[in-house]
Amino acid sequence: MVINKQSLTDQVYTMIKEQILNRELELGEQLNTRKIAEENGISLMPVRDALRRLANEELVENKPRVGFFVKNFSEAEINNILEVRKMHELYCLDNYFDQIDKKELAKLKEKFKNGNQKYFSNYDTQLHKEVIFASNNDYLIDSYLKMINHYTMLFSYLNYKRSETSRQEHIRLIDCILEGNKEKARSILFRHLDQVQISEDAEIKKRT
Amino acid sequence: MVINKQSLTDQVYTMIKEQILNRELELGEQLNTRKIAEENGISLMPVRDALRRLANEELVENKPRVGFFVKNFSEAEINNILEVRKMHELYCLDNYFDQIDKKELAKLKEKFKNGNQKYFSNYDTQLHKEVIFASNNDYLIDSYLKMINHYTMLFSYLNYKRSETSRQEHIRLIDCILEGNKEKARSILFRHLDQVQISEDAEIKKRT
Repeated sequence: MVINKQSLTDQVYTMIKEQILNRELELGEQLNTRKIAEENGISLMPVRDALRRLANEELVENKPRVGFFVKNFSEAEINNILEVRKMHELYCLDNYFDQIDKKELAKLKEKFKNGNQKYFSNYDTQLHKEVIFASNNDYLIDSYLKMINHYTMLFSYLNYKRSETSRQEHIRLIDCILEGNKEKARSILFRHLDQVQISEDAEIKKRT
Repeated sequence: MVINKQSLTDQVYTMIKEQILNRELELGEQLNTRKIAEENGISLMPVRDALRRLANEELVENKPRVGFFVKNFSEAEINNILEVRKMHELYCLDNYFDQIDKKELAKLKEKFKNGNQKYFSNYDTQLHKEVIFASNNDYLIDSYLKMINHYTMLFSYLNYKRSETSRQEHIRLIDCILEGNKEKARSILFRHLDQVQISEDAEIKKRT
């Protein structure tokens, strides 16, 4: 990676954040500040600043006198994250159904159908975000986005595997919203979020 | 205030946080780091560290090259906070009604009835927290507690004024939970949160 020296902290921050969200770095993995600095030909300071910023966002854990680590999650924490996701999405679907951006959904439907399925998890995340954005409540949106970063770290790399079933589910969800069928949209979303929980719990267990 | 020199940052942090939550400091007020340091006979460093920590919790705003300010809120932000509060409390009441700690509620009922009404807003906050704690979801609880600090900054000093109506409402809410009447508890909580919104919106408008 070529680093532009003008805003080192920002660049290191973005680079490590991407590596965490894409799971190029493993959950719980130690982050070697010296190595990151050397590999990018920069001093320790911007690396530490970037890691501190990531620690504020709870993507990284700063263990005093030990070092920085990619955040790791217990089974209870994973279930907690899934529940908080569900609370946000069902609340917004219930209360802001008519405010969901139909134009964006039509574009997303096209992507789910004919887009490059390599980016499936991006389309997935975007669809769920559209439901949240309908609230137009920045406070609620911020709390969702913080959580969804943890969700992405945990799950998005798994989505590709079960993409065919999931792809169909997402298309049906979009159709229901476009048709204004709130009740059916709710039941699909509710079931979808539960299935994520069951199948991904199993995946996580297999890996740990 | 006598400052124990052993953990200056912690002490300054706690002191300023209390002043913010009790509204001894006004919303948007600039925090003079030099003055705080001089008044407490300490150096600038622990004051800045404490203010940075409060900025992380979004109780303080750090404007680069200008200084630290107590967080202020636009009308839209106030409504957003009230909505997020409602989302959390109604979700927990709906899903964890039977898990609410009845012993704690009985104690709180006694305080609402015969306790020192100077501490009314503490009893108030505690009752709402009990509903949230029933979820046993640390992720959800953290997101609620962060929000409730902003709520406290905005509103708790107003509660005393309307305490008689509010006191009765809280006692009725506790009774419904103790009797296991979920539907009635929900309708009281729902109405209560809306009333807070209307009456406190009016108060805020009067003051601004």
